[in-house]
Amino acid sequence: MNPRRIHIQEVGLRDGLQAETRFVPTMEKIALADALSKAGVAKLEVSSFVSPKAVPVLADAVEVFAGIERKPGVVYSALVPNLRGAERAIEARVMEMNLVMSASESHNLSNLRMTRAQSFAGLRDVAALAHGHGIKVNVSLSCSFGCPMEGEVEQQTVLDLCARFVDELQVQGITLCDTTGMAYPTQVRELTEKVRTRWPALELTLHFHNTRGMGLANVLAGIEAGAERFDASLGGIGGCPYAPGATGNVCTEEIVHALELMGYDPGVDLGQLLMAAHTLEDLLGHAVPSQILKAGRRLDLHPVPAPACST
Amino acid sequence: MNPRRIHIQEVGLRDGLQAETRFVPTMEKIALADALSKAGVAKLEVSSFVSPKAVPVLADAVEVFAGIERKPGVVYSALVPNLRGAERAIEARVMEMNLVMSASESHNLSNLRMTRAQSFAGLRDVAALAHGHGIKVNVSLSCSFGCPMEGEVEQQTVLDLCARFVDELQVQGITLCDTTGMAYPTQVRELTEKVRTRWPALELTLHFHNTRGMGLANVLAGIEAGAERFDASLGGIGGCPYAPGATGNVCTEEIVHALELMGYDPGVDLGQLLMAAHTLEDLLGHAVPSQILKAGRRLDLHPVPAPACST
Repeated sequence: MNPRRIHIQEVGLRDGLQAETRFVPTMEKIALADALSKAGVAKLEVSSFVSPKAVPVLADAVEVFAGIERKPGVVYSALVPNLRGAERAIEARVMEMNLVMSASESHNLSNLRMTRAQSFAGLRDVAALAHGHGIKVNVSLSCSFGCPMEGEVEQQTVLDLCARFVDELQVQGITLCDTTGMAYPTQVRELTEKVRTRWPALELTLHFHNTRGMGLANVLAGIEAGAERFDASLGGIGGCPYAPGATGNVCTEEIVHALELMGYDPGVDLGQLLMAAHTLEDLLGHAVPSQILKAGRRLDLHPVPAPACST
Repeated sequence: MNPRRIHIQEVGLRDGLQAETRFVPTMEKIALADALSKAGVAKLEVSSFVSPKAVPVLADAVEVFAGIERKPGVVYSALVPNLRGAERAIEARVMEMNLVMSASESHNLSNLRMTRAQSFAGLRDVAALAHGHGIKVNVSLSCSFGCPMEGEVEQQTVLDLCARFVDELQVQGITLCDTTGMAYPTQVRELTEKVRTRWPALELTLHFHNTRGMGLANVLAGIEAGAERFDASLGGIGGCPYAPGATGNVCTEEIVHALELMGYDPGVDLGQLLMAAHTLEDLLGHAVPSQILKAGRRLDLHPVPAPACST
C-alpha cells in the first residue's frame, strides 16, 4: 500500500514574514520561495496583496511573483484582502487567491475593521473577479477553533460560514484557521469529520499555530479525521501582532519530520527543507522556534561524549 | 462515563533541576514539592540520591525529603543510582526508588560509566535492598525509543530488558524513557501495546522529552495504546548535559491543559500548577520552555486590541 499523501502548504513567506519588523530583501524572498518549491511543498503562499502601507514588509508582492520560478504542480497562492489587491494579484498571475475573514465577529472587527457581513460581501466580489479570470479561490476562516476575545466559537457558526463559501462563493478550498492556537485534538477531529462528510470534494486545509504546544497533535487529529492539507511555516515563524496571544505557525520541518517517521508521504525533501530553514535566522535577525533546526533529525547521530546523569 | 484517569508524575525537581547550574535553595525545593503535591500530581520524583559531588544541585536530597509535607495518595519517589544512594534513600523514607539504566550500551557507558550488564547487576542489589525495606521499585530505561549515539534501539532489546526487570528484579514499575526526544507516535503506540499486553499488572510510565516537538503527540499515542502514567516537568525544564541533543521534558502544565480539554482526568488543578510554574523563572534565573506559561490557558481571554492581519 502506498503511504498516504499529505499536502504541505508553506505559509512562512506570508503568515511568517508579515509578523516580522525587518524587510527581507525581494531577492531573498524569491530564493526562499524557489528553495521551498524545489523541496516539494504542494502549495506556497508567496505573499500578500494587502496595502503596502499596512504591511510594508510584504510591499514587494508583485516583484516576488515576477521573480519566482514556477515549478509544475505547485500552487502559487497569495493572500488577497479586497478588490484592489485582487487586481494586483491578477497582474502578478497568482494561481489561487486566499481570501480571509474570521468566524468571530470581534476578531473580524479588530483584524479587518469590518463586520463579518461586510467581509462576506467583499469576499463575494473578489471571488467573482477571481473566477472570471480562471483563478482558484480559497477562503481562510480565522478563529475557526476559538477567538482570543470571545472564547468559544460555535461549530455551527463555522459550518454555516463554510456552507456560504461553498454555495454562494463557489470556493474551491477552505482553510480552517486556528489563529491563536486554541484548537485541541478532539475538537479538530470532530470539526474536520463534519466538514469532510458534508463537502467531500472541497479542498480542506487545516492551519494551526503552536501557541499552546498542541500544533502537531492537532495535525495528527486532522489526518485521522480525513484532512490531507496542512499549512505550516518554515522555522515555525509567524504570529500576528494584532492577534493577542498568537505565536508561530506549526513548523514545516517539524511536521514533515514527524509525518515521514509515521509513514505518511508529505512529498517534501527534508534535507532541502532544513537547508532553507538554516538561512532564516540570518534573514530575520533572530532565533526561530523550530526544534528540528536545533536538535537535528531523529537519526542525526552524536559522538560519544563525557559522563553522567539522565533518564 | 467517568473521564479516563491519567496519572501525572512530576519529574521537574529531579530531571529538571539536575540540568541546571544554579543551586535552588532547599526551602524553595520543598515549597515547590508541596505546591505540586497539593496541585494533585500522582507521583513526585523529589530528588536524586546520586553522589552530591556528581550532581551538587541535588546534594540536599535528604533535607528535601525531611522537609516536604507528605500528602496521602501521592507517591514520593527518588532516583537511586546504587547501594550507597539506596541507603540514603531509605533513611529519607522514600516511597519508591527509581533505578536507572539504558537500553543502549553506548548511552549506558557514557551516562553511567558501566556496561548494561554491570548496571543490571547493580540494580539487582538495590532492588533487593529496597524490597527488603518494603519500598517499591521502578526502573527507568533510558533510550527506549532510540539512542543519540547508536541510532535505532531494537524493540526486542527493550522488551528483553523489561522481562528481566519484571522476572529477576520483581519491579513494580517500568518507565520507558525517550531520553533525547527520538520517539514518534506510531513507535510509541506499538511498544506501549506490546508492554501493556505482556505485563498488564505492571505500572508502565512513559517519559518523553520534547526535543523534536513530538512530546504531546507521543503522550496521546501512549494513551491510545493503554498507557496511563506519564512523566512531565513543570515549565518543561530538563534535559541532560551529558545526553547530546537532549532538551526539556514534556511540560506538565501543557500536558494537563491538553488532556483536560480532551476530556481526560489528569487529577491536577491547572490553576495551582500554573502558580507554581510562575515561580520557576525567578528560581532558575532564565526563561522556561512552557508555552502555556506565556500564552495562558485556551480560554484566558484578551481585550479587544488595535487593527489588522492574521489568519
